Amino acid sequence: MNLNMIEAAAERLQGHGRVTPLLSSPFIDEIAGRRVFIKPECLQHTGSFKYRGAWSAISALDPDIRAKGVIAFSSGNHAQGVALAARQHGVPAVIIMPEDAPRLKIDNTRALGAEVVLYDRAGGVDRDEIGARLSAERGLSLIKPFDNEFVIAGQGTTGLEIAAQAKAEGVEAADVLVCCGGGGLTSGIALALEGHAPSMRARPIEPEGFDDVIRSIASGQIEEITGPAIGLCDAIITKSPGQLTFPIMKRLCGPGIVVTNAEAKAAMRIAFERLKLVAEPGGAVALAAALYHGDQIEGDNVIALISGGNVDADLFAQVLGES
Amino acid sequence: MNLNMIEAAAERLQGHGRVTPLLSSPFIDEIAGRRVFIKPECLQHTGSFKYRGAWSAISALDPDIRAKGVIAFSSGNHAQGVALAARQHGVPAVIIMPEDAPRLKIDNTRALGAEVVLYDRAGGVDRDEIGARLSAERGLSLIKPFDNEFVIAGQGTTGLEIAAQAKAEGVEAADVLVCCGGGGLTSGIALALEGHAPSMRARPIEPEGFDDVIRSIASGQIEEITGPAIGLCDAIITKSPGQLTFPIMKRLCGPGIVVTNAEAKAAMRIAFERLKLVAEPGGAVALAAALYHGDQIEGDNVIALISGGNVDADLFAQVLGES
Repeated sequence: MNLNMIEAAAERLQGHGRVTPLLSSPFIDEIAGRRVFIKPECLQHTGSFKYRGAWSAISALDPDIRAKGVIAFSSGNHAQGVALAARQHGVPAVIIMPEDAPRLKIDNTRALGAEVVLYDRAGGVDRDEIGARLSAERGLSLIKPFDNEFVIAGQGTTGLEIAAQAKAEGVEAADVLVCCGGGGLTSGIALALEGHAPSMRARPIEPEGFDDVIRSIASGQIEEITGPAIGLCDAIITKSPGQLTFPIMKRLCGPGIVVTNAEAKAAMRIAFERLKLVAEPGGAVALAAALYHGDQIEGDNVIALISGGNVDADLFAQVLGES
Repeated sequence: MNLNMIEAAAERLQGHGRVTPLLSSPFIDEIAGRRVFIKPECLQHTGSFKYRGAWSAISALDPDIRAKGVIAFSSGNHAQGVALAARQHGVPAVIIMPEDAPRLKIDNTRALGAEVVLYDRAGGVDRDEIGARLSAERGLSLIKPFDNEFVIAGQGTTGLEIAAQAKAEGVEAADVLVCCGGGGLTSGIALALEGHAPSMRARPIEPEGFDDVIRSIASGQIEEITGPAIGLCDAIITKSPGQLTFPIMKRLCGPGIVVTNAEAKAAMRIAFERLKLVAEPGGAVALAAALYHGDQIEGDNVIALISGGNVDADLFAQVLGES
């Protein structure tokens, strides 16, 4: 896993992935007490950065193997990314999703042509068993959500764009705050920055109660969360960092920042009001860290990802109403 | 008023205005029955295209005159654009706004450092008299919202970007649907397209009951709406096209399309769900035309502006809830 793989992924994504802009707002700078640049991956195809990794991984498969189709486990954003990238490659996709995933994510995944298999997360069903059986029967290639080198490389292309766009804004050094689940985006960006913007460092941002990556970086070994992996920030709730992502994050990332659900929702309102962007709860935690945990951030500039915007309308309306 | 002025405005905006991306969604294409490209000016500084014209006009003033300050009349988007551009030039701004303008727009204009003077739109107050008195007393330069060549030139820079970005997508010919108030954006884009993408044509989109520009183009002379200029689509409600904008639109624009308020709100929901963008009602009418009036559009591709995203949270939540 190295920078070359990220640069190769960027080449494969050329003309397919969207180069998202780098945004800012004087109102956000004022709250944060420093200049804040926002990388809105909610504007990426399928509404999250996950399309990058999915395209990267599917485009890297041997064509004969790819033709049999792909399979993925996902609560929603990876699901949509894989579904669209598979459809664009003309190959079938099977997505195994928890039945309590956000409605919009399930509906979109189906609408993008994937076969969706729902399972009861609380009911003791072994989703891995379902996946293994389907893969064996049909010869499907498993596209893991983060512990896959080609997926990490795809997510890392976000970091290449950040390095170039920040430089164009005159910013050479900055903390780059990354909404973090299993660490695919965080580790990919960390590697990209190491090569293209060595004065920047990636820092994982997680919601309270689901700070497995942050605790793992702090302790130097993979830590797990206990209890059910369900919460407001569904997109970035994972049990533990990956076998591939963790060593990269351990080597390259600065310490993480934990934000509360209330702070994530406040950041959603700020993104609505000041950036005209729809952020989902898990996609808003990095902006929340920039806004409300400035004491843990160094430097005059900070860059915050908005990793996704796939939020149901009723939840979004409710969050707006809580202001 | 010509293409050179638009190109000069683009040079003055370099490093200040934001080059907004060209977005799309397969879900939107499916509803519309053709490829739809969205130019999201809600992502422009201050949340609408108005910043372009304001910067263009203020940057073109003689420095000694500019130093005395500027004044503008606006229900909100032009207000914010002028306020920010004035602040960035280090000169004072006075903005005369109706007291029933959206709260967010009034608050933002003040927060951007402008002196806001509110008037009672229904109370028979002559806002022009207020403006004339203030201008005379302080030597302020009036920045009209659309009937000003430098403002039109600034808005026209959107058209230069559309021409280049559409070409990069392989699109040479298309209707370009423009949310239309007094016609500053529409006429500026029309002129830019005439020079840079002659197979494209701008078409004004207006809400029902406020179709002054569309009727004027149809009749060949300036038509006015009767009754109070207040409605859901506040950003683009004007009494009549301008003396400068109308001849340009008459010469260059295709026929306009009228959309209902319900269609504008449905387009706001689609922008939320499919583009992760916040569109205000008046900013959503062009997307509404692309989605729901495809029978009036020609060609396999269409380009729709989202002209602004300055909508109060309670109205946005209400619109989401109406789905």
